[in-house]
Amino acid sequence: MLTLETSSQRDWTPILQEFDAILGESGVIRRKEELLVYECDGLTSYKQRPAVVVLPRTTEQVAQVIRVCDRHQVPFVARGAGTGLSGGALPVEDCVLIVTARMNQILDIDLENQRVVVQPGVINNWVTQAVSGAGFYYAPDPSSQIICSIGGNVAENSGGVHCLKYGVTVNHVLGLKVVTATGEIVDLGSKIPEMPGYDLTGIFVGSEGTLGIATEITLRILKAPETIRVLLADFSSVEAAGQTVSDIISAGIIPGGMEMMDNFSINAVEDVVGTNCYPRDAEAILLIELDGSEVEVDTNTQRVEALCRQNGARNITAASDPQERLTLWKGRKAAFAAMGRISPDYYVQDGVIPRTKLQYVLQEIEALSQKHGYRVANVFHAGDGNLHPLILYNNAIPGELEKVEDLGGDILKLCVKVGGSISGEHGIGADKRCYMPEMFSAADLETMQYVRQVFNPKGLANPGKIFPTPKTCGEAARAIAPSAFPTLERF
Amino acid sequence: MLTLETSSQRDWTPILQEFDAILGESGVIRRKEELLVYECDGLTSYKQRPAVVVLPRTTEQVAQVIRVCDRHQVPFVARGAGTGLSGGALPVEDCVLIVTARMNQILDIDLENQRVVVQPGVINNWVTQAVSGAGFYYAPDPSSQIICSIGGNVAENSGGVHCLKYGVTVNHVLGLKVVTATGEIVDLGSKIPEMPGYDLTGIFVGSEGTLGIATEITLRILKAPETIRVLLADFSSVEAAGQTVSDIISAGIIPGGMEMMDNFSINAVEDVVGTNCYPRDAEAILLIELDGSEVEVDTNTQRVEALCRQNGARNITAASDPQERLTLWKGRKAAFAAMGRISPDYYVQDGVIPRTKLQYVLQEIEALSQKHGYRVANVFHAGDGNLHPLILYNNAIPGELEKVEDLGGDILKLCVKVGGSISGEHGIGADKRCYMPEMFSAADLETMQYVRQVFNPKGLANPGKIFPTPKTCGEAARAIAPSAFPTLERF
Repeated sequence: MLTLETSSQRDWTPILQEFDAILGESGVIRRKEELLVYECDGLTSYKQRPAVVVLPRTTEQVAQVIRVCDRHQVPFVARGAGTGLSGGALPVEDCVLIVTARMNQILDIDLENQRVVVQPGVINNWVTQAVSGAGFYYAPDPSSQIICSIGGNVAENSGGVHCLKYGVTVNHVLGLKVVTATGEIVDLGSKIPEMPGYDLTGIFVGSEGTLGIATEITLRILKAPETIRVLLADFSSVEAAGQTVSDIISAGIIPGGMEMMDNFSINAVEDVVGTNCYPRDAEAILLIELDGSEVEVDTNTQRVEALCRQNGARNITAASDPQERLTLWKGRKAAFAAMGRISPDYYVQDGVIPRTKLQYVLQEIEALSQKHGYRVANVFHAGDGNLHPLILYNNAIPGELEKVEDLGGDILKLCVKVGGSISGEHGIGADKRCYMPEMFSAADLETMQYVRQVFNPKGLANPGKIFPTPKTCGEAARAIAPSAFPTLERF
Repeated sequence: MLTLETSSQRDWTPILQEFDAILGESGVIRRKEELLVYECDGLTSYKQRPAVVVLPRTTEQVAQVIRVCDRHQVPFVARGAGTGLSGGALPVEDCVLIVTARMNQILDIDLENQRVVVQPGVINNWVTQAVSGAGFYYAPDPSSQIICSIGGNVAENSGGVHCLKYGVTVNHVLGLKVVTATGEIVDLGSKIPEMPGYDLTGIFVGSEGTLGIATEITLRILKAPETIRVLLADFSSVEAAGQTVSDIISAGIIPGGMEMMDNFSINAVEDVVGTNCYPRDAEAILLIELDGSEVEVDTNTQRVEALCRQNGARNITAASDPQERLTLWKGRKAAFAAMGRISPDYYVQDGVIPRTKLQYVLQEIEALSQKHGYRVANVFHAGDGNLHPLILYNNAIPGELEKVEDLGGDILKLCVKVGGSISGEHGIGADKRCYMPEMFSAADLETMQYVRQVFNPKGLANPGKIFPTPKTCGEAARAIAPSAFPTLERF
């Protein structure tokens, strides 16, 4: 457990008085024991207690809180549901944590134009629940969709199983009301898809709280498909499963989702969940979800089945009934939890590779796994080359986490080497910032830093996230416009 | 014709010597009569001769040219094929025009990952030609696709008929090599779809040359659909055609394209082109293109035909054969040219409205047409609410253009009033900048201006475009961070 030291020299009394005046005392959490729950997000290996937590309900309250932070030069971090896996909502030393839990209102449902406007604390799944009766749904579906917030999805540009066909969060956010780090309220985008001027909505989505806080989010909702069918195919080699994925995409079929699990993951899931659907002797399984009109799904089912068999699939199970589909998905959805049952701890990595490099990368991951001496289970969004290697270890043994992080880092470097990315859908946050120079030149990162300054001139909004800092990442980070960002050094 | 006066006080001799050294004499155009062709783009109502035209072939040459401009404080404007309709490539007084015509190489074709890397001067249609043999195509298809350049498409975030289903240029550009206004070479994005950090690719697409020049563009190509079918349906009222559009989308069908033409346009087209397909007595026709697998297209054809008939369509003609499809499209593709034959001049407007407001807006446009005393023909991308009203007038009569621009402006204000936009796919350029405050608050525009400063700190890259300036747009423009952008005033 890496605990960051706190050494507050600040007199918080006047600041807390201002917060109380804005939010009422019940909107300000200051007692140490109550602050404990906020000291990390889904990346539990880092902890840092915030100085104070505030719970605004409105855009205006967020703006007022941020103006207080600006005036007192206090860094602040936004937090939605705290399910993020890269430490994007990890507090920084001596900071104000702005929690959006009370900003949980669906503000507008416009079915005719297929738009829903929400506050950032609205849970992802609520959006679909609110419109499913009318035959619509919200497409981006992180595994955590029943607990994660739309604000957090916007911050991390979250993906999910269905993003292969429908795109990640940025493709479904049309407009944002944003409070910048100086407390200014700005509207980016709108309800219509293409706005003139610069696409600031696109830049804000995925900016991990470093440009300010989104307080109203306009989402696109989609018409629910007429038919959904899930196919489960098992293969005697990972290569054959990988080739099937390539063949399906090459045939011009874009499944709603296309997931792969390796033998180790299959057995872990069957040990823990017991789906009795996933054959324990398969080297890999594919879960392929086809959606669309009934004839389209029928035709694509036949074509996909043929491609699976052509690559040596032994059995193919299909399910159209919602309950049966759920059964097929059950093991995949429980895969992370299953690792937690068979190993004391696990570390989820998130990287992207060109789909065509899948076989090579899986072989290399196996080699790295053996070299570092840790078991790696592979569960991933195969269709878009988004890997989630799960590294199993025991955190109770001192020094293990650091070694596991080294292995995770080697996997990221491998992804970059083959033309991929160090993050698919979990963001960079606190966890991966030191790997940013693997992907971006100093000039590229410097350009991003200057854009950051537009919204966040003093560096008070979520400092130390996304970008490497000399303190944490060593000398290499010094190249990145250090003079322009003195506040970046504080974390 | 609005001619902007040129009053160069600058000694160009040393600058031209530097350009000659970088590009060779054949790469530098300086003779007045040769410069004439470059004094406007597709928006022919504004003209301004550049001081010099340069024709680089490489990223490095573009960077060297821009560094010369930066050192001598000379504004520069990028120009692709010059087909833009908002004056985005209109030279500014005493500027260097950087023409990308010689940057016409397709640098890489990666069919396996469905990516093509091009220089900016590559013509839109060449991309599809280069990959169609392998069964792929490039989706964004402006009407000018056989002559417009990818660089210009990136600058204006161009759309086209098929953008209803497949999205505009920004959805198909994954990476950019960019020369900023200070001559720095930066890579934005890459071949993979979602990169960590800020989405600077998204911000650059549609920035109309105000952030620098893209010198390498990584495009996504799509698998060509198995079947394409075009339906032509005719209606006895515009309302019925509009309702059909809404009904098709509400049914969850997304056609490849869905275009509407009104009675006036139909007759103009038949007078000039004589397709003999478009019924002259129809109040409106819809051209609906369905694509996908054969069964999917068959099913959707039946559903669309039923919806057309339900709204009173008289005749529905379907064509799957490429030659027959071309015949049905011929009139639509020739619509703008037809206006040029029946009227001395026409002014194309480009606005967006929520699809649900279609009937109301068309009625209001008719009322505005009568009030201002100019005939307006309506040809538009009905599926995404992107209107192209064509205002017919005679530019030989002094003062007519200004009156027509007033009518065009009233149409834009109408679009904004119903929740739409002042530009769908032609950009803001020089033409519509004064209408930006109709859509954006001073704070919104100021935020964009600061982002502009990141790439273009001295305002040398395409000054006076997109953003309103006090000189042209009056006092209202002064609110937008005037002190930060002194160079904005020069045009």
